[in-house]
Amino acid sequence: MTARGNLFIISAPSGAGKSSLLSAILQDKPADMKVSVSHTTRQPRVGEVDGEHYHFVNVDEFKALIDKQAFFEWAEVFGNYYGTSKAAIEVMLEKGIDVFLDIDWQGAQQVKEMMPEAIGVFILPPSKAELERRLTGRGQDSAEVIAGRMAQATSEISHYGEYDFIIVNDDFEQAQVDLKAIIRSQRLTRASQIHAQNDMLNDLLAD
Amino acid sequence: MTARGNLFIISAPSGAGKSSLLSAILQDKPADMKVSVSHTTRQPRVGEVDGEHYHFVNVDEFKALIDKQAFFEWAEVFGNYYGTSKAAIEVMLEKGIDVFLDIDWQGAQQVKEMMPEAIGVFILPPSKAELERRLTGRGQDSAEVIAGRMAQATSEISHYGEYDFIIVNDDFEQAQVDLKAIIRSQRLTRASQIHAQNDMLNDLLAD
Repeated sequence: MTARGNLFIISAPSGAGKSSLLSAILQDKPADMKVSVSHTTRQPRVGEVDGEHYHFVNVDEFKALIDKQAFFEWAEVFGNYYGTSKAAIEVMLEKGIDVFLDIDWQGAQQVKEMMPEAIGVFILPPSKAELERRLTGRGQDSAEVIAGRMAQATSEISHYGEYDFIIVNDDFEQAQVDLKAIIRSQRLTRASQIHAQNDMLNDLLAD
Repeated sequence: MTARGNLFIISAPSGAGKSSLLSAILQDKPADMKVSVSHTTRQPRVGEVDGEHYHFVNVDEFKALIDKQAFFEWAEVFGNYYGTSKAAIEVMLEKGIDVFLDIDWQGAQQVKEMMPEAIGVFILPPSKAELERRLTGRGQDSAEVIAGRMAQATSEISHYGEYDFIIVNDDFEQAQVDLKAIIRSQRLTRASQIHAQNDMLNDLLAD
């Protein structure tokens, strides 16, 4: 019996290295782990593939999905809509796939409300100085722009207490080990194992 | 700031491979992991070192410790007393050491009552046939003795539902990975990290 997959909410401020971490975890394309593909109304960028990077839909289609309560969470950002479809995720979870939602704290709150068993993981940079270094980039941005990014990152970080697990991305290798440990451990919880090992437990306890 | 260590209760029926698993995890003598050393009134066997394998005490000393409520859990087995000292464990946890209690489900219940944050891990054999093979040993025991061992193992297994995590020891390497994942993940919980990363979080959120 394949156990149902787990839904992981992965949040972080810019500069914490969330995208690199998710890419590293998924680079071997494990059959039982997938990042959720969001719906969006923004235009595809060069190289973006429908159904892979996003499900590209128009505004009317998106609004119809909102009305049908098809989204776990959705948001409007700079005039474009983004949303996470419930049905697509449910299908993957049922197949035993762990699904990763790459969303911010607001989306995380919406998902947790609808699915309290979702597991929140927050990625932190190791220090303010290091965060500033990462957000300064190649030195082409004004002090004002950088200050704006720092303020936004600090605001995001203030929500770390709403997550189940916290990873400090200081050493990138260790951060990968940590994320993998969290993912694996959630397959070993009593609830997961009672489902996954049901036949075996019956065998062990049979007279 | 060093985070407080976690207390892990490790239980299993004979034949699940618990001792091998604990030995493998601790073979490099990691500074932040230790198996709790029990008190006992039984005589030391050849090669057993006081304070390392057990704290050897006499019956009067043991009973005085019971009266002082010095034990997390204790039991009398075949006329000998065995117990887990609270103070010794508390000192290790405070130093940031993860402590493993190698006890049965009865001891586990006592510990969980006194310290609900203790993390219970149950190790299972992969099947009844494999358990029987492991308990049969070298074929020197009678069918009756083996049946007795099987009955005891089955009775122990029936308590798997009282543990937080369940590991199936089918592939020994995987079981080690699994136990390490559980141990590591418990360092990454919000509660552990808020304590461990307190200074860093203050730095990140400072104006």
